[in-house]
Amino acid sequence: MNSDPPHSDETEPPVDADSFKERLWRLIFLSDTPAARGFDVVLLWLIGFSIVVVMLESVESIQLKHGTTLTLIEWILTAIFTTEYALRIWTCRKKLRYMCSFFGIVDLVSILPTFLEVFLIGSGHFIVIRVLRLLRMFRILKMATHMGSAYVLVNALQASRSKISVFLFGVLSIVCIESTLMYIIENGQEGSGFTSIPQAIYWGIVTITTVGYGDITPVTVLGKVLASIMMLTGFAIIAVPTGIVSAELSREMQAIRPDNRNCPNCGQHGHDPAALYCKMCGQKM
Amino acid sequence: MNSDPPHSDETEPPVDADSFKERLWRLIFLSDTPAARGFDVVLLWLIGFSIVVVMLESVESIQLKHGTTLTLIEWILTAIFTTEYALRIWTCRKKLRYMCSFFGIVDLVSILPTFLEVFLIGSGHFIVIRVLRLLRMFRILKMATHMGSAYVLVNALQASRSKISVFLFGVLSIVCIESTLMYIIENGQEGSGFTSIPQAIYWGIVTITTVGYGDITPVTVLGKVLASIMMLTGFAIIAVPTGIVSAELSREMQAIRPDNRNCPNCGQHGHDPAALYCKMCGQKM
Amino acid sequence: MNSDPPHSDETEPPVDADSFKERLWRLIFLSDTPAARGFDVVLLWLIGFSIVVVMLESVESIQLKHGTTLTLIEWILTAIFTTEYALRIWTCRKKLRYMCSFFGIVDLVSILPTFLEVFLIGSGHFIVIRVLRLLRMFRILKMATHMGSAYVLVNALQASRSKISVFLFGVLSIVCIESTLMYIIENGQEGSGFTSIPQAIYWGIVTITTVGYGDITPVTVLGKVLASIMMLTGFAIIAVPTGIVSAELSREMQAIRPDNRNCPNCGQHGHDPAALYCKMCGQKM
Amino acid sequence: MNSDPPHSDETEPPVDADSFKERLWRLIFLSDTPAARGFDVVLLWLIGFSIVVVMLESVESIQLKHGTTLTLIEWILTAIFTTEYALRIWTCRKKLRYMCSFFGIVDLVSILPTFLEVFLIGSGHFIVIRVLRLLRMFRILKMATHMGSAYVLVNALQASRSKISVFLFGVLSIVCIESTLMYIIENGQEGSGFTSIPQAIYWGIVTITTVGYGDITPVTVLGKVLASIMMLTGFAIIAVPTGIVSAELSREMQAIRPDNRNCPNCGQHGHDPAALYCKMCGQKM
Repeated sequence: MNSDPPHSDETEPPVDADSFKERLWRLIFLSDTPAARGFDVVLLWLIGFSIVVVMLESVESIQLKHGTTLTLIEWILTAIFTTEYALRIWTCRKKLRYMCSFFGIVDLVSILPTFLEVFLIGSGHFIVIRVLRLLRMFRILKMATHMGSAYVLVNALQASRSKISVFLFGVLSIVCIESTLMYIIENGQEGSGFTSIPQAIYWGIVTITTVGYGDITPVTVLGKVLASIMMLTGFAIIAVPTGIVSAELSREMQAIRPDNRNCPNCGQHGHDPAALYCKMCGQKM
Repeated sequence: MNSDPPHSDETEPPVDADSFKERLWRLIFLSDTPAARGFDVVLLWLIGFSIVVVMLESVESIQLKHGTTLTLIEWILTAIFTTEYALRIWTCRKKLRYMCSFFGIVDLVSILPTFLEVFLIGSGHFIVIRVLRLLRMFRILKMATHMGSAYVLVNALQASRSKISVFLFGVLSIVCIESTLMYIIENGQEGSGFTSIPQAIYWGIVTITTVGYGDITPVTVLGKVLASIMMLTGFAIIAVPTGIVSAELSREMQAIRPDNRNCPNCGQHGHDPAALYCKMCGQKM
Repeated sequence: MNSDPPHSDETEPPVDADSFKERLWRLIFLSDTPAARGFDVVLLWLIGFSIVVVMLESVESIQLKHGTTLTLIEWILTAIFTTEYALRIWTCRKKLRYMCSFFGIVDLVSILPTFLEVFLIGSGHFIVIRVLRLLRMFRILKMATHMGSAYVLVNALQASRSKISVFLFGVLSIVCIESTLMYIIENGQEGSGFTSIPQAIYWGIVTITTVGYGDITPVTVLGKVLASIMMLTGFAIIAVPTGIVSAELSREMQAIRPDNRNCPNCGQHGHDPAALYCKMCGQKM
Repeated sequence: MNSDPPHSDETEPPVDADSFKERLWRLIFLSDTPAARGFDVVLLWLIGFSIVVVMLESVESIQLKHGTTLTLIEWILTAIFTTEYALRIWTCRKKLRYMCSFFGIVDLVSILPTFLEVFLIGSGHFIVIRVLRLLRMFRILKMATHMGSAYVLVNALQASRSKISVFLFGVLSIVCIESTLMYIIENGQEGSGFTSIPQAIYWGIVTITTVGYGDITPVTVLGKVLASIMMLTGFAIIAVPTGIVSAELSREMQAIRPDNRNCPNCGQHGHDPAALYCKMCGQKM
C-alpha cells in the first residue's frame, strides 16, 4: 500500500495552486494541515459508524424494530460518502487512476448498493444487493493507512514472509498426509465425521492450529492415537512462526537502536546513539 | 497505579508526628516496619478469604447447606473491613482524596452491600445487591500492588503497548472482513449459526484466537475453506504479539543487567557496565 | 533426505555422455537447465492436480456425478506417471538403488493402484485398493525438495531437536500423571468420558495442547479444578518450545550473517567476521 | 531433585569395598559402569512396560478379554520390583533415608497394591486398591533423571519462575474479575452454563488459555462481547510467558557458549571456547 502508484500521483497538486479546488484537494488527499487531519478523523469516525450500521442491519431483531431509522442513517451516510467521492474525483488530477485504484473502487462500491436498492427493488435481486452493501466493510482498511507506528511490525512480517510461506506449505503437507491417514482409519465408522478427504483436511487444519471446534472428532482408538500425535506435532510446530517473527523483530529493533560511530581517538564502537563522549577514553565525539 | 496522586499524598504523615494517629497511619498506609508488613499480609489473606466466601455464596448447593455460616463469616469480614475503612479515613490527612481514589471506592463498595441488604430486604432489590457484593472481587487488585518482581513484565508490556494496539486493530480488521464474507456464505444455510454479522464476528474472534468453542461452525464447503484460511492466518498471526513481547523482554533484561552508576559530574545514568568515562560529559567514573 | 545415497548416485551421468539417454537423464533427475526446470515445474503441477483428483474422488457426491470423468483423468495421469517412472528406470544407472529409494517406491505406489483395480475388480479387495490409491498423497513430499529457502528453518529445528524431545517427554509425563488422577476422579461419574486411562490421556493431550475439542470434559468439581490447573500448566508450558525455536532461530540468523571464510592453512570455518587470524592454527587470513 | 540429600548420601559406598554388596550397590545406584548403565536401561523399560499394563487394565474390554494375562504380568513385574526394592534397602547404607526419600516411597507404593489386593479382597476396598495401583505412574519421573540434555531447559524455567508466577497471578486476577462479570450477565439465562462463580472461573480459564471446550459458552449478546474481549486479552497475554522463556533461553544459550578468556597479547575477549589462537593477533592462548 505504501508505494501504490495511483496514490503517489494524487499527491501532485492540480495545476492552478492556491485555488479553492487545490485547497480542497489538499484537505481530502493529504494530512499535513490541522484541517486536513480533522477531515481524516471525521471521515474515519463516519466509516466506523457506517460499519456498525451495516452490522446492526444484519441482526434480524434490530432490523425489525429500528429498520426505518437504520435506512435513514444509511441514506445520510450514503449522501456524505457520495459527496466525498464526487469531491475526490473533481479535485483529483488523474481521475481515472483514482477511480481504478483499490480505494477508489471501495469508495464507489460502498455508495452504490443504497442507490441500486431503489432501482432494483422488487426485482428479486434483493439478496445480491444486501451482499454488495457488506463490501462497505472493506473501508475499514482505510483506517489502517493512518497508523504510524506499524512500520516495525510490517517490516518484520515482510522480512519473514518467505520463511512463513515455506512453513505454511510444510504444515499443509503434514496436514494432507495425516488427514488422509485419518480418513483411511475413520471413514465408515459410525458417527464419524471423516466422510471425505477434504473434510478430513478441514479437521486437520482445525486440529493443528489448536482451534479444535469439536464438530469432527476421532472415534476409533487408532484415530485418537494419530490425532494425539498430530496435536503434539502442532504443539511443537506452533513455535516455528513465533520463533521466526520473534527473531526478525529482535533484529529489526536492534537495527533501529545503536549507531555505527567509532571513537576518533581509540576506535571503540557500540556507543549509545545519544552519547556525546567516548565511553572508553572520554574523547569528545 | 504507581504514580497515583492520592496515594503519594497519603505518604505524607499527619502534622502531629509520633502520636497514636501517626503510628496507625504508618501501620496502615506504609510497609516500612515489620508491624506494617504484618498488617498488609493479614489484610491480603482476609481479602483472599472474603473473595472465596463470595464465590462459594454463588454456588446454590453450598448456599442452601451452609447459608447461615457464610452470612456470619460475611458479617465478621464486613466488620473488619469497615473498621479498616474507618481507620483509613481517620488517619489519612487528605480524606476526600482517599475516598475518591480507586481503592477508596473499592474499599467502600466492598462493605456497603452487606449493610444495604439489611435496609432493602424484601424490597425486590435483592438481585442488585448480590451483584454489588461481587464488586468486592476488585479487591484482588490490591494484592497486585504487593508483587515486587513485576516491573520487568509491566515495563515490557508498556513498551510494546502501541505495537500490540496496532496488532489488535489489524486482527480486528481481518476478523471483520472475513466474518462478513462468512456471513454472506453461511447465512440462510440450515443449522448455520451465522445469523448476523455481529454473531459472525464473535465466531471470527473465537476462531482466530484458536479458542474454538464449536458452538458456531461452518457447514458449507466454501465456509469451511474460508474458515481454514482464517485459522492458518490466525496461526501465523499469533506469532506477532509473542514476537513483540519476546523482543521487548530481551531488550528489557539486557537493559537491566547494566550498571546503576550515575555520573558524578552530570548525574547521567544508563551507562555501559564497561564504560570508564561518562558518555554525556566525558567525566572519569 | 539431504544425504540420501540413492539420490547422490543418480547425479552421476550414464557412461555414454551426450547421447539421448544422457540428455533425458539430465532432464529428469537434475534441475540445471531451463528445460529440466520446466520439466520439474510441469511434474509438480501434475502431482498437485493428481492429489486434488484423489481428494475429490473421496467426496461421495462428486464421485456419483463426475465418476467417469475422474476415472478418465486418473488413467491419463497414471499413463503420464508410468511413462515418467519407466524413463527414470531406463535412464538411471543404478536402477535397483532408485527403485528401492523412498521416492522410487512412492513413484511405483502412485501408479500401481489404477492397474490393480483392473485385475482385482469384483474380488472384494476394492477398499484396499482405494486405500493404496491414497498413498499417492506422499508425492506431496516431492514438492518439498524444491523449496530453497527452507534451510534456516530446517537447521533451527534440527539444532533444537534434542531439546524438543526432552520437552515432549516432559509434557507426556505430566499428561500421564494428571490424566491418571483425572481418571481416578471422574471415572464412574454419569456422563463422564473418562472411561479408561488411555482415553484420559487422549483428553490430556487435547487439553494441554489447547486444542480442546470438548468431546470429553470434566463433570465433577474436583475434575474441573484439576483440569484448570492442567490448562494453566499447558499455558505456561507452551512457551517452552517457542522459546527454544525462537532462541535457535536468533542464533541461526546471526550465525548466517557471519562470514564463510575458511582458514587457508587448516580449513577451519566458522570464524568471527572480524577475525584477522585463524582461531585454530594462528594463520593470518 | 538434583541435590536431594538422601540420594547424594547413597553415593557413598558401604564400608567393605569390593565386596559383593558394594558391587551390587554400585550397579543399582550409580551409572558409571556399562553393567550399571545396562541395569538402568532394563529397569526403565520395565517401568515403561508396567505403566502400559496399568493403562491397559483400566480399559474394560481388554480387562474382560485378557484379565488373567494382565494379572500374571503384574505379578511378575511386582516380583521384579520387590526384588529391586529389597536390594536397594539391603545395599544402601542409610536405609531409612532412602525409604523416606521421594523415590523410596514411589518404589514402595508401586509394589504394595498387588499384595494388598490378596489380603483385602472381598472386603469392599477394591476401588481404593485400584487407585493405589495407579500411583505406580509416578515411576515415570524416574525416567526423567536419565535425560542429560535437559539442563538448559530446567535452568531457563527456574530463572523465569518468579516472572511466570507473577504472570499466572495476574492472569488469575483478570480471570476472576471477568468471570464474575460474566456470571452477573449470564446467570439466570436459559441454557446458560454460568450457574456459579467457580463455574464461571472454570469457563474463564478454559477461554483465556484458548482451550475452548465449548461445554460452557455465553448465550447473551453482552456475554459474547465480554467473552470476545477476554479472548483477545488472552491472545495478547499468551505472548508474555513465551516471551519470558524465550528471552531466558536466549540468555542461557549465550551464557553457555562464549568463554571469558582474554588474549595474553592484545587483551581481545569474546573468543570461541574451542579457540587455540587469538583471532585478532594470532597469539597462542
